[in-house]
Amino acid sequence: MSNKSKLRVGVIGGGQLARMMIVPAINLGLDIKVLAETEDSSAALAATMVGDYTKFDVVQEFAKTVDVITFDHEHVPLEILQKLEAKGVNVQPPSKALAFAQNKLHMRRQLSALNLPMPEWAAVTDAEELDQFIADHGGVAILKTPIGGYDGKGVRVVRSADEASDWLTPEALAGFGGELLVEEKVEFVREVAQLSARNPSGEFKAWPLVQTTQSNGVCAEVLAPAPGTTPALLELSVAIAAHVAEGLGVTGVLAVEMFQTTDARLLINELAMRPHNSGHFSIEGSVTSQFEQHLRAVLDLPLGETEMTAPYAIMVNLLGVDSKNTFVGQYRKAMALHPTVKIHTYGKSARSGRKMGHVTAVGQIESAIASEVWQTVGILLNG
Amino acid sequence: MSNKSKLRVGVIGGGQLARMMIVPAINLGLDIKVLAETEDSSAALAATMVGDYTKFDVVQEFAKTVDVITFDHEHVPLEILQKLEAKGVNVQPPSKALAFAQNKLHMRRQLSALNLPMPEWAAVTDAEELDQFIADHGGVAILKTPIGGYDGKGVRVVRSADEASDWLTPEALAGFGGELLVEEKVEFVREVAQLSARNPSGEFKAWPLVQTTQSNGVCAEVLAPAPGTTPALLELSVAIAAHVAEGLGVTGVLAVEMFQTTDARLLINELAMRPHNSGHFSIEGSVTSQFEQHLRAVLDLPLGETEMTAPYAIMVNLLGVDSKNTFVGQYRKAMALHPTVKIHTYGKSARSGRKMGHVTAVGQIESAIASEVWQTVGILLNG
Repeated sequence: MSNKSKLRVGVIGGGQLARMMIVPAINLGLDIKVLAETEDSSAALAATMVGDYTKFDVVQEFAKTVDVITFDHEHVPLEILQKLEAKGVNVQPPSKALAFAQNKLHMRRQLSALNLPMPEWAAVTDAEELDQFIADHGGVAILKTPIGGYDGKGVRVVRSADEASDWLTPEALAGFGGELLVEEKVEFVREVAQLSARNPSGEFKAWPLVQTTQSNGVCAEVLAPAPGTTPALLELSVAIAAHVAEGLGVTGVLAVEMFQTTDARLLINELAMRPHNSGHFSIEGSVTSQFEQHLRAVLDLPLGETEMTAPYAIMVNLLGVDSKNTFVGQYRKAMALHPTVKIHTYGKSARSGRKMGHVTAVGQIESAIASEVWQTVGILLNG
Repeated sequence: MSNKSKLRVGVIGGGQLARMMIVPAINLGLDIKVLAETEDSSAALAATMVGDYTKFDVVQEFAKTVDVITFDHEHVPLEILQKLEAKGVNVQPPSKALAFAQNKLHMRRQLSALNLPMPEWAAVTDAEELDQFIADHGGVAILKTPIGGYDGKGVRVVRSADEASDWLTPEALAGFGGELLVEEKVEFVREVAQLSARNPSGEFKAWPLVQTTQSNGVCAEVLAPAPGTTPALLELSVAIAAHVAEGLGVTGVLAVEMFQTTDARLLINELAMRPHNSGHFSIEGSVTSQFEQHLRAVLDLPLGETEMTAPYAIMVNLLGVDSKNTFVGQYRKAMALHPTVKIHTYGKSARSGRKMGHVTAVGQIESAIASEVWQTVGILLNG
């Protein structure tokens, strides 16, 4: 490394996570290149190729232009990454870790082998097994497709196998790898997320635990740090994240989404092996943002400090309201009334429900910054 | 504006200031385009044109692609900007303000008309006038070329007109517009800079006064806020900046570099009508960075809050040591030992004395962050 004048990171996928990685690349003087799906991607500024990431030749050609490959999303076919690795390409996180992110059943099996805390779960292959699990767990369960789900897609609350008959046909099951994942419906007091990062040398750092609020399966609000947490809970949370990161061989940023139960247990719900919506607060709220940390980690550079820049941070997502409002037309009013709030939009075309941006405030008084952020969001949404 | 889905800013010049403007453009979802001098400019990521900014046709073609033109530097010929403005192009800061930034004699005359505090000065056209000024001011003076100077170039300490004979030839004088600027050599206790921003609607906001330390005419270290300042001095400083911004019709970021005298006066030394080295601390050290504020200001959006994110910030420049060290090879060591420090490099090729990057730390204890930053700089410079 010491003889190189630039460190070159390649990001597969041109979404908002790739876009937000461009910022620390500029600051640190890193060379960032993006393999985007379309010409007008959110990360178009750094897109050096537009192509199909499910085609080996495309990804291989892209890989030749960078020192390390990393990701905006977890959808690149494993076989492609394995072939690249076999040819000596540096892929971070490596395919063996991403295998767990791409298949929720593989993930559950590995977390079980690591004795990590989770909701009760089973792999089911037919209606009978599913109904039995439901009966054993109070008449309700969470059914998930092992692959292809995100932001609430591929997840269903079921009280009978009849409610999942479309996923249980032989054709559908085959598409999911022959099995569905069923989990107990946890009675939780809240959802939290533990964000951390690990580099290939094994260095690990965690941000403070955050509280996440979902709306229709999509992250709506994040409070950092999670209010009312005990030191014991914080310690437990970081220990879980470290165990997951090491046990699954994750590099880069890892988000562990968990349920906090009434008896103060933390149960792992989902994992993401990339910067995550629950960590957007860190752009302003942490000494090192999750996007900077991800770049440092995948380049095997030492990790930055993760302490907060202020006692409190709050982040609220901007979801598209219709096909017209890109929020930019409301900037003048929002900025005039809320000069301390930081508005982020991702340069995406408008669509109802789409993650179009987010708004963050940091400060000394939790209720004050929450009020600022929600008022700003209100203006941006409604004009 | 309310019907537009994107706001488009065009920056003339592809240096590090343009590079650092890309960051808030990404965050705010603004469309940023750069007219760069070369293919491998510091701001290449956002360069949509490479061309000669001294050619009207080039600049006009670029201007057609954006909503407002602003600058990485102050060297675009005034005639070009005036012609663009006559054709209805939105130029910020406008040519009438830039005229003062491009000619130090025009600037001194206008500041005098505004009764703003300055070193004593005169326009001289020959050796006799220069020697008279020197004799009237203790046998020493600061001689400046009215145009073309920056970072210590075009500035000379003189004790006799003989020391400026090369600038006093008819040919040389003609190149400077027929006159040189001579100023008293001020006995100052320190140099300070007042950074502020103003938008075309007249909104004005200032950051805290900072202390700057120069080395060989180049900014070396900035402390924010300037240590040991009285409320009266802070008030005076902001009042001066506001008077300059309004009096000269400046929009965007304005840096007023001043001498603080032993009797607590502030005397205006230089002005810059763009983001400035003395404001780099604001990237991490202020709720709104100077680069975000500049974009907001030139787009006539409301200005962001300028309070600091921590009690203290320190910024130290990374000047090139030779033609090989781009500092990236020392990242591993620097980051491992100093995880709270933020390293910035500008993607420029290495050259001795060149501004290649800077290092910032913010925190609660001034001496602690200063130690962190200087140790980091030491590693980056020496390996």
